[in-house]
Amino acid sequence: MNEQQALERVRRELKPVRYEHTVRVTESAEKLAHRFGADVEAARMAAILHDYAKYRPAGEMKRAILGTVWLSDDWTRYGDPILHAPAGAVFVKEELGVTDRQLLDAIVYHTTGKAGMSLLEKIIYLADYIEPGRTFPGVEDVRKAAETSLDKACFMALANTVTFLVNRRQPVFPDTIHAYNDLADKIK
Amino acid sequence: MNEQQALERVRRELKPVRYEHTVRVTESAEKLAHRFGADVEAARMAAILHDYAKYRPAGEMKRAILGTVWLSDDWTRYGDPILHAPAGAVFVKEELGVTDRQLLDAIVYHTTGKAGMSLLEKIIYLADYIEPGRTFPGVEDVRKAAETSLDKACFMALANTVTFLVNRRQPVFPDTIHAYNDLADKIK
Repeated sequence: MNEQQALERVRRELKPVRYEHTVRVTESAEKLAHRFGADVEAARMAAILHDYAKYRPAGEMKRAILGTVWLSDDWTRYGDPILHAPAGAVFVKEELGVTDRQLLDAIVYHTTGKAGMSLLEKIIYLADYIEPGRTFPGVEDVRKAAETSLDKACFMALANTVTFLVNRRQPVFPDTIHAYNDLADKIK
Repeated sequence: MNEQQALERVRRELKPVRYEHTVRVTESAEKLAHRFGADVEAARMAAILHDYAKYRPAGEMKRAILGTVWLSDDWTRYGDPILHAPAGAVFVKEELGVTDRQLLDAIVYHTTGKAGMSLLEKIIYLADYIEPGRTFPGVEDVRKAAETSLDKACFMALANTVTFLVNRRQPVFPDTIHAYNDLADKIK
């Protein structure tokens, strides 16, 4: 599947506003890939596909996760907002025939992060967080950090996310804290 | 060892300001034990001993943790401020001959919490957080919650602690997030 085909499939899965977000994430991922020496084509493809499952029903996403041996059942126990990331990887594999594990993992972890993220995983995580349409408090500081340090920018995004979730008394997927602690240690 | 002997040993281990904190935690733990139907004597004893290791050198605490099969080495990887809790349980066992595992666990988890805390563990965790000398932002709300719900009060204290740590870019021991998620689910 080439990039144009992937974009076409994704456009049919998403509402226009989410498709536009996807296009911006793809552009941000390309810039980050250039900046930090990653495979630009892989970064663009992972970004195009990262929100593939965004509008699938929660029940369908949970069944996809529970039916997949390479995903922990824990993904279904921390609230609906994170389901689309691991479920997206399942659907992209099964429906679009994407088998590159690095690319699938970048989709799986794009919302939560995890300890020991790969270069591609960090780029997709960060591109999703800083794409120009985002207006989170603190996002401008993360964009600035992303000009020079991928780890520092990811760490700041993770810290903001934990604070956001805890302030709203929402669950925090344990991999998010593992990612935060891992990068806190790396950027020391 | 009776309570008076324990207080005397603890008084010799701590600076006066920390000993006074310990006495207040003991009084708070007693009140909480009465309120929520726990063993008052066990709650007082765990509270008396909870900060036993507070002034031991970090290196000594790390060696004690690493030399103990029932404590994960992870305790030594999340910063010095949490060491005194697990190390305290080791010293209380080895130096004072306390063998009650419930009581030792209440000392181990008094700073971090964990998923599935026992009644005694929750009481010591909370008593340490709300004793009258504490002036954290938000502590008054936790005290109010503690009048009626142990789980809700512990959850609020955990949420405040995560926010405090992340705002300061400090590591978060994973059990703290597990405790937060566990209680978020229980008080829903």
